[in-house]
Amino acid sequence: MLFHVRMDVQLPPDLAPDARASLLARERDRALELQAAGSWPELWRIVGEYANFSIFDVESNDDLHEILSSLPLFPYMSIQVTPLARHPSKLGA
Amino acid sequence: MLFHVRMDVQLPPDLAPDARASLLARERDRALELQAAGSWPELWRIVGEYANFSIFDVESNDDLHEILSSLPLFPYMSIQVTPLARHPSKLGA
Amino acid sequence: MLFHVRMDVQLPPDLAPDARASLLARERDRALELQAAGSWPELWRIVGEYANFSIFDVESNDDLHEILSSLPLFPYMSIQVTPLARHPSKLGA
Amino acid sequence: MLFHVRMDVQLPPDLAPDARASLLARERDRALELQAAGSWPELWRIVGEYANFSIFDVESNDDLHEILSSLPLFPYMSIQVTPLARHPSKLGA
Amino acid sequence: MLFHVRMDVQLPPDLAPDARASLLARERDRALELQAAGSWPELWRIVGEYANFSIFDVESNDDLHEILSSLPLFPYMSIQVTPLARHPSKLGA
Amino acid sequence: MLFHVRMDVQLPPDLAPDARASLLARERDRALELQAAGSWPELWRIVGEYANFSIFDVESNDDLHEILSSLPLFPYMSIQVTPLARHPSKLGA
Amino acid sequence: MLFHVRMDVQLPPDLAPDARASLLARERDRALELQAAGSWPELWRIVGEYANFSIFDVESNDDLHEILSSLPLFPYMSIQVTPLARHPSKLGA
Amino acid sequence: MLFHVRMDVQLPPDLAPDARASLLARERDRALELQAAGSWPELWRIVGEYANFSIFDVESNDDLHEILSSLPLFPYMSIQVTPLARHPSKLGA
Amino acid sequence: MLFHVRMDVQLPPDLAPDARASLLARERDRALELQAAGSWPELWRIVGEYANFSIFDVESNDDLHEILSSLPLFPYMSIQVTPLARHPSKLGA
Amino acid sequence: MLFHVRMDVQLPPDLAPDARASLLARERDRALELQAAGSWPELWRIVGEYANFSIFDVESNDDLHEILSSLPLFPYMSIQVTPLARHPSKLGA
Repeated sequence: MLFHVRMDVQLPPDLAPDARASLLARERDRALELQAAGSWPELWRIVGEYANFSIFDVESNDDLHEILSSLPLFPYMSIQVTPLARHPSKLGA
Repeated sequence: MLFHVRMDVQLPPDLAPDARASLLARERDRALELQAAGSWPELWRIVGEYANFSIFDVESNDDLHEILSSLPLFPYMSIQVTPLARHPSKLGA
Repeated sequence: MLFHVRMDVQLPPDLAPDARASLLARERDRALELQAAGSWPELWRIVGEYANFSIFDVESNDDLHEILSSLPLFPYMSIQVTPLARHPSKLGA
Repeated sequence: MLFHVRMDVQLPPDLAPDARASLLARERDRALELQAAGSWPELWRIVGEYANFSIFDVESNDDLHEILSSLPLFPYMSIQVTPLARHPSKLGA
Repeated sequence: MLFHVRMDVQLPPDLAPDARASLLARERDRALELQAAGSWPELWRIVGEYANFSIFDVESNDDLHEILSSLPLFPYMSIQVTPLARHPSKLGA
Repeated sequence: MLFHVRMDVQLPPDLAPDARASLLARERDRALELQAAGSWPELWRIVGEYANFSIFDVESNDDLHEILSSLPLFPYMSIQVTPLARHPSKLGA
Repeated sequence: MLFHVRMDVQLPPDLAPDARASLLARERDRALELQAAGSWPELWRIVGEYANFSIFDVESNDDLHEILSSLPLFPYMSIQVTPLARHPSKLGA
Repeated sequence: MLFHVRMDVQLPPDLAPDARASLLARERDRALELQAAGSWPELWRIVGEYANFSIFDVESNDDLHEILSSLPLFPYMSIQVTPLARHPSKLGA
Repeated sequence: MLFHVRMDVQLPPDLAPDARASLLARERDRALELQAAGSWPELWRIVGEYANFSIFDVESNDDLHEILSSLPLFPYMSIQVTPLARHPSKLGA
Repeated sequence: MLFHVRMDVQLPPDLAPDARASLLARERDRALELQAAGSWPELWRIVGEYANFSIFDVESNDDLHEILSSLPLFPYMSIQVTPLARHPSKLGA
């Protein structure tokens, strides 16, 4: 089941460089892991912004919240979730 | 080059059923054609709305405007375009 | 799987009284049917507005869109869908 | 008398882990207590957000304000209250 | 129980003068009746707008919706309801 | 001359408890004084928010600004003023 | 007593040219009359918009509403009123 | 050439009283100087807000930006500029 | 003197094809004329929208309003004007 | 390929004067460099704001994001990117 997600990141301005680097490395590892598992099939940077558009493919709403709220950057992100359905004009649909 | 596009459709309330059916059929044909050509790789319905999220893959801004403005539904849509870039945490990037 | 839905109705001002009565009767029948089937467990009027807050319980995003877009009032409603998850402080959760 | 409530939580970024844990534990206890008492019959997490939709069942506006303003998280929440009425298409109404 | 209500009126531009006069007269009669009954204790015009701020004093949310939705101008108004509570600094409170 | 005022309070998160208590006590004293003098005839808490709707009765715009800007909480409030006029459907008007 | 007023005009698209010319002539006459009387001391066009910023000098809120609602264009304008006070840095204040 | 300007001031909450007094004194001196020079012909306080509406009379856009950005409060203000033109119904125009 | 202008076009849905073609031809002629005269140095289509961003180079605010309000599409456009100044990091500035 | 970009700068209020001067000098150097290279052909100050409108001319969305995110002020800016296309009424188009 597909969901469209927009994430906007706002790191605390006084985050120490080491803490910041470690946080971003853990976020990246988790993102790669979720992509490899098939739960996060699409991920794009929004040009000029510290933000992304993503597509998630999960079993349920609960699964999606569990995934999103476990991201290391979750406390620093504003997240907007939109449920997606098949489009009747989708090729092959 | 990828672009994120949101389209919201608002058909005139007094559109005759025949004109409406013909308009939607032409839109669907054009959408299928553009998907087959690779310019419109993703297309999802937003649940509960007469709207979609789409991904377009085009050569240039001019190409994208030419494609969008030639859609049969263009006069009845509000369209919002967001340019996309590679995300540094994208698997395989 | 639960979804929170807000529906705002705006009927065309020139709808004939008969067409209006028939439309609302069909909407009511469909609403009762979906409630009896368990897909639409909660439905409240927002005080002072021609609008409601609803809870839907469905198998998937596609099911929810199919249900919402088949409502007789769908062409006259603005609908906003929010996916819900278990709350950790929910009694009995 | 039913009210629809949306609560968005924003904890101070520099809250000490102990203070935070204690605050959340007190909030959870109070939420469970109010649910057991029947004043807070519904509570859902909004997917991807530190926010909830709730239904409260109270005797009066004053009771609702007393309940909400006594929540341990009240100083850290933005709260939006919407009064609800019976819907004419509600099954059994 | 007190509620703060803002009503913005937008009459259809093609309403015939007679129908308009009759509609406004019925609205005024109903407003006076509700004020005399004590349900609508305060009513002010917002300067420069076809809108008012009002205070309603009712038994329940259902009563308030019944009152508001029975106003002759209801189909032509956008209404926003805010529940009120005692203020701790209110004189005599 | 009547004015509708909405005040939203946002105290600095690091305000010391004593300073906070003293500030709120001075605000309450001033509010009671202005109510006793007839300048602040109505004051309601907005349910679920640290905010109020008020009615002020003053001689002029200058008087109203002088009153509002002298409130102890003024530096911590966002205030929105709306001038009111007699409503033609007001009972007794 | 001074008020800042913004007026945005939106004439009905199907207004007959004669009715339109007559309406605008009456509006202009009334505007000149109010300026000559001293009630409408300032009036500026907002560049690129069918809108103006104005300053009104009136005895009371009721007077201002009476003046604004009697303008021939009143039914076709969206009006926003802001009360003004003396500024402490005003030269000569 | 006239411009309409709205300025909203937000001083840092931890500004020392002396620094604050000195800043405001310098702002007032500069405001008086610009008024005396004819560049800032109108200045009003917005009732209930730490904000003003102003009219500036300058030779060019560059002059206006130079004036505004040299105000001592500039770093603490949010400023919105609107170019003004002669209104065709202005008395004497 | 430079101004940034955004124009959004919304043609009446029932405009006859001939009237529409004639209107657009007159708009295009006027746009070319103003560009040739140097008053409208830049003009870009916003991708996916019936809208443009433009730069105007004019003597005064009055000149800009005269130019914009004389465009054949003026009655069907929503226009937003922003005055521009030299940027201190502009090459050659 | 052209893009319209709006940048709003918000420097941390407690930035030390030296750090601030150094940051702005590096930003200016980078801006001049990108203008000399032809990637940033237009740059205007928005009157009264710490913000600019810019035009960028780049090969791709990825190039634009690389340029914008490498600006020294990037962490302190809110940036909004709009893709531009040829306008059919552009002189010489």
